Order: sequence, then C-alpha cells, then structure tokens
Amino acid sequence: MRVFNFNGGPAALPTPVLERVAAETLDWNGTGMSIMENSHRAKEVVAMAEETQADLLELLGLGADWKVLFCQGGASLQFAMIPLNFAQGAECDYLDTGLWSTKAYQEAQICGAKPHIAASSKGDDFTYIPSEFNYSKAPKYVYFTSNNTVRGTQWPTFPKKAPAPLISDMSSEFLSRPLDLTDFVLIHAGAQKNVGPAGLTIVLIKPEWANTGAKGLPHLLDYRTYIEHDSMFNTPPVFAIYVAGLVFKWLKNDIGGLGNIQKLNAAKAKALYEAIDQSGGFYQGTARKDSRSPMNVTFRLVNADLDKPFLEEAKKAGMVGLNGHRSVGGMRASLYNAVDMAAVKTLIDFMAEFQKKRG
Amino acid sequence: MRVFNFNGGPAALPTPVLERVAAETLDWNGTGMSIMENSHRAKEVVAMAEETQADLLELLGLGADWKVLFCQGGASLQFAMIPLNFAQGAECDYLDTGLWSTKAYQEAQICGAKPHIAASSKGDDFTYIPSEFNYSKAPKYVYFTSNNTVRGTQWPTFPKKAPAPLISDMSSEFLSRPLDLTDFVLIHAGAQKNVGPAGLTIVLIKPEWANTGAKGLPHLLDYRTYIEHDSMFNTPPVFAIYVAGLVFKWLKNDIGGLGNIQKLNAAKAKALYEAIDQSGGFYQGTARKDSRSPMNVTFRLVNADLDKPFLEEAKKAGMVGLNGHRSVGGMRASLYNAVDMAAVKTLIDFMAEFQKKRG
Repeated sequence: MRVFNFNGGPAALPTPVLERVAAETLDWNGTGMSIMENSHRAKEVVAMAEETQADLLELLGLGADWKVLFCQGGASLQFAMIPLNFAQGAECDYLDTGLWSTKAYQEAQICGAKPHIAASSKGDDFTYIPSEFNYSKAPKYVYFTSNNTVRGTQWPTFPKKAPAPLISDMSSEFLSRPLDLTDFVLIHAGAQKNVGPAGLTIVLIKPEWANTGAKGLPHLLDYRTYIEHDSMFNTPPVFAIYVAGLVFKWLKNDIGGLGNIQKLNAAKAKALYEAIDQSGGFYQGTARKDSRSPMNVTFRLVNADLDKPFLEEAKKAGMVGLNGHRSVGGMRASLYNAVDMAAVKTLIDFMAEFQKKRG
Repeated sequence: MRVFNFNGGPAALPTPVLERVAAETLDWNGTGMSIMENSHRAKEVVAMAEETQADLLELLGLGADWKVLFCQGGASLQFAMIPLNFAQGAECDYLDTGLWSTKAYQEAQICGAKPHIAASSKGDDFTYIPSEFNYSKAPKYVYFTSNNTVRGTQWPTFPKKAPAPLISDMSSEFLSRPLDLTDFVLIHAGAQKNVGPAGLTIVLIKPEWANTGAKGLPHLLDYRTYIEHDSMFNTPPVFAIYVAGLVFKWLKNDIGGLGNIQKLNAAKAKALYEAIDQSGGFYQGTARKDSRSPMNVTFRLVNADLDKPFLEEAKKAGMVGLNGHRSVGGMRASLYNAVDMAAVKTLIDFMAEFQKKRG
C-alpha cells in the first residue's frame, strides 16, 4: 500500500513514473539490460540524456543561451563551486533566509571569497523573506535560496535591480512553477524534491557566464568541464538522469507544463493554509503570510505535547513525513509536485479530526 | 529478453538483485514508499546504509580501523580530493599504467601537488604492469590503479616496500577477489563495475589517515566530513547505496564471499584467455600474459576490418559491450562478478564460430 508522503526531501515521486521504472528495471528501451547496466556512452543512453536536457529547457521556456548540467554532490558542492568559480576571492552578496543560505555563505568563506550578507531575516528566526537590501559595492554575484524548506518560506518575487547577476539554490521549488530567469546566470536544484532520486544535481547555467570562471580548478569543480563534455566528462548518475527524464515527460504530457503544475500546487497550498488559519489557533503557521511557501507548509500545534500523538496518528492514517526539520521541530507538510490534492485533503480531514479529539 | 552484457562499465548487475529492485520500486521495506522517496534520515534508511557498510567490511575482512564512505563524483573527484587532502603541495608518487592513472597524475598537478611518476609502462603502450620503481625521496603516498579497464591489465601483486602508504583506484576490480590492504590507507571504487549504479563512489579509508588531511577544504572535499557524519552530511545517493547493499548481500549469501567469487572469476578469465591463445593468432590478447586482468579481457582480431562484423554478429547472438574502449579500439570483454560462465561460454562458442566463417 502506498502512503501519503509529505517528506521534505527525498520526497514523493509520481506513481506512474515509478511504475514505469519498475517495469523497465530488467530491460530498458529494448536493450535487454537495465538502464543501470547500459554504458553511458551507448547511443540510446546519450539520446535519453539529451532528450532529458531538451525537455527541461522546453518546460522552463529557455533557449540556447542556457545549458543543463548533470552534476553530483548536491547543493553542498554547489555552495563551494560557485564561489570558487565566480567570486575568485572577491566580494559576493548573500541573502540570508535560513539554514541553506547560511551554509552557502559559510562555504563561500571557506572558499576564499569575501561573502557579504546583503539582507537577512535571521533576527526574526527566518520566518519571512527580506525586502530591504544592503548590497556591497561591486559584488561578483547575488546568491539566494528561492524556497526555504526548513522554515517554509519562498521569495514571492525575485530580487529586482540587484547590482550583479543572480544565482539561486532552487532545490525545493524547482519545476513547481514557471520561472523568469532574466536576471539569473546560474540556478541549481537537488533532484530529490521535484525531479528524481537523490544523487543528481541539476544545474542551469549560461555558458558565457561559465566562461568567466576561475581557471585551474580541479576538473569536476569547473562548470566548463560539464559544458564541454555535455555532462559526460566521467560517468554521470545515469539512473537518476533517467528517472528525472521520466518526471519531465510526466510534467509535459500528463500535467501539461509548469503553468498547470503551478495552479495545482497553489490550490493544494491554499487549502492547507486555510485549514491552518481557520483552526482557531490549534494549528499555527510559522512563516509570515506574505512569505509562505506553497511547497513546504510549516506549522505548530497549540501545544508541543501533541506533536508525538499527531505524528503517530497521522502515520496510522497513512500519512508520513509530517515532522518539521530536525533543526526547528514542529510540523511540515511538503506539497511537492507528486503530492496530489487527494493527499492534501486527507491531511486536512485528519487535522480537523485530531483537533476535534484533542482541541 | 536479457542480453549477455560485457560492458566495461556501467556494467552487468546480478539479475536477482534487479528483480528485487523492480519488486520493491513502489514500496520498499513496508514503508509504502520507494526507497527513492524515503528520507535519508528515516530510521529504516539509516539502518540500511549502516548494514551496507557493515556487510562491505565483513566481505573484505576489515575491522574498525577502516571506514566505508559513500561519496559522489566518481574516480575523477577522488583524483582531486586525494592530493588536496594528502599531498598538500608536496611530493607524491604515481605508478603510471594507463588512462586512469594518467588522469589521476594530471589532476594532482592541477591540485598543487608535486606528483612524480615512479613507474610507467607507457613506453610499451601500457600493455603490462611495471616491476621496477623509482620512488621519490619522501612521497606523501604512492598511488596506482589496481586494474586497468582500458588496457586489460591488473597488478598481480601490489607494490611491496613502497616508501609511503598506498592509495589505489580499485574501481574495476573491487569485490572481485579478497584484498590484502595492509599497506593501504585509502582505496576508492566507482560503483558502476561490481557494486551498483553509477553515481556512487565507495571510499575505504583509515580515519587516522583522514585526520592527517589538509584543513580548510570545502566540506565535500574533506574526507573527515564524510567520516564525522557517516556519509550523511548532506543527502547521499540513497538509491545507489540501496542497490549496492543488495549486491553485497548477493555476494555474501548467494556467492559465499570474495574467495568464491575470485574462483568463479578466475575460471571465466582462464576459459576466455585460453580461447584467445588457442585461436592460432586469429584472436590476439593485447596485454602481456603476466599482467592480464581477469576482469577486462582485451584482444584484437587478426584483421581490423573484421571488427565491425564481429560486433554486429555478436549483438545478433545476444552479446553486447564487446567493443574496446574508445581510446584504443579493438575488443574488450569485461567479466565482472555479475557476468556468469554461461555468458563466457556463449562468447567463446561465438568466437570459434566466427573464426570458422571468417578465418
């Protein structure tokens, strides 16, 4: 029996995608081998990887001035690669909205850059997205986390008139809505939210920006290596790319694109936030309303003693992954693309029932 | 229909492992979710990862002075991490036996080390394993590739009395035989040969050696990060770890350990090399006999014009992956653990038949 999966990441994947993965595990694409057993240089695999890149660009409405890279090492390796390539010891601005942007900032320090915090919501426990900025004079780039999984906040609009190109970690909202990337030169996203299995990091980069990067870096830390070899300098994580490709097809063909998934995601979030707001304080949202994330709905129960029974009874009712991030506690319902309205309605009904019993 | 898969890597996986992966794709371990959808911090996943580490140490007969790390980025990232951590700008010795050790050497140069080639078979086209060494005075470590996938050579015995601890890329022989790691401090192996899907790099390291590493490196380039967080500093490639775990169980329970797999591998290699040697020159092994790899059997046909028909007819007969590495051409039959004697016999029969028709 499949459960309703509200995990923050790794997270729910579309059931039809998993059904296809299962069906093809011993024989992919008529090759008589699993996708895991095929050479990454076999023409069928290269074609699959190229189609996956093309589908992603099509979903995002991006042209040939962008390149899709298949990297490894998660956001944590991007936190190092970005300053190593593009700060080159100089100033770069970070917008501080929680755990992950803090880690990115700290890694920039380790990597010899001079990161500057140009905005922060730390004073108010990262419960909102800042609207005032104190940029440094000539930063190499402006970095931010577009959706904060831990605190359940999301940038409603991206920073305007920043003094340098934007770079963003979009892991936990990637492919949940159309994106205007006009002011961006690089975004990265760990696959394990809306894309596929952990172990793949999607990087979208403008090659002309990549060319401004530091020279003499280790090969796998230089974005040009991935661009020049179309992400096949060495063996890429083929299975994860394959699953990502199926998810992109599902978004294109079954869902109908990012405009449609945005509507579905907005409806799910609206329903759950309304249930929280209309609970008379039994459930309390933790993010400021104007900064709420449609992807990660964070809330607390009126009494923390109820956390354990809430999670246990939810599990009995077929819902998992509702615990908040280990660094903050409370509750979090992650409503990624593969979590459908039926799951959200089940949660809302359960919450009402739980409140009736314990409220 | 499953084919006989002689790919050099990504390569064949045991069919029973793939059958189990397929069966569990939608519901792993009674969680109601795919292993890909489970949180890496869920207790079931942490237990699976720990069991996978324990099984690997047991297979190799290693104790608590060794630690199993789950890394990403393949051998190519190890090529950088090793000198960054352990050469620290000083001398280190490389034994040059082919494409991959050359890449490791070059990456050490990029990483600010002073690598020195202490032995090389380059002059004879990397067709053998050197037995004479010209070590530098006080190298930090001695690095070599224990099995050379491209040229089909393998170290029959590891270097003795080296002036520093040994470090080795064992990707294409890892788990094919028992190993005496007495003189080693670190070995690494890409999963995509004998372990599991690409996107996972197994590192075995002595923690006391890791502690001698450079300080101030980016987190994901510092081995201590993986040791301290038991490879969960950030989200690891969970699916690949899970498949590796199933392969380790298969080796332990179905095969009966590394002593047994070594015998099976030796018998396969013996049969194929004999068929080559007894073909009267129609098939010619490319590696020197004393350096032949049991994992990658490289050979040429008497006339290169026959390469194409050989590969095409082999494919029609259900055998794939017999082409040599793109850098050298010719033929290569990789006989990894999951390639059984039935596959090898089918190949030998085909080769005899082909020679009869074309010889």
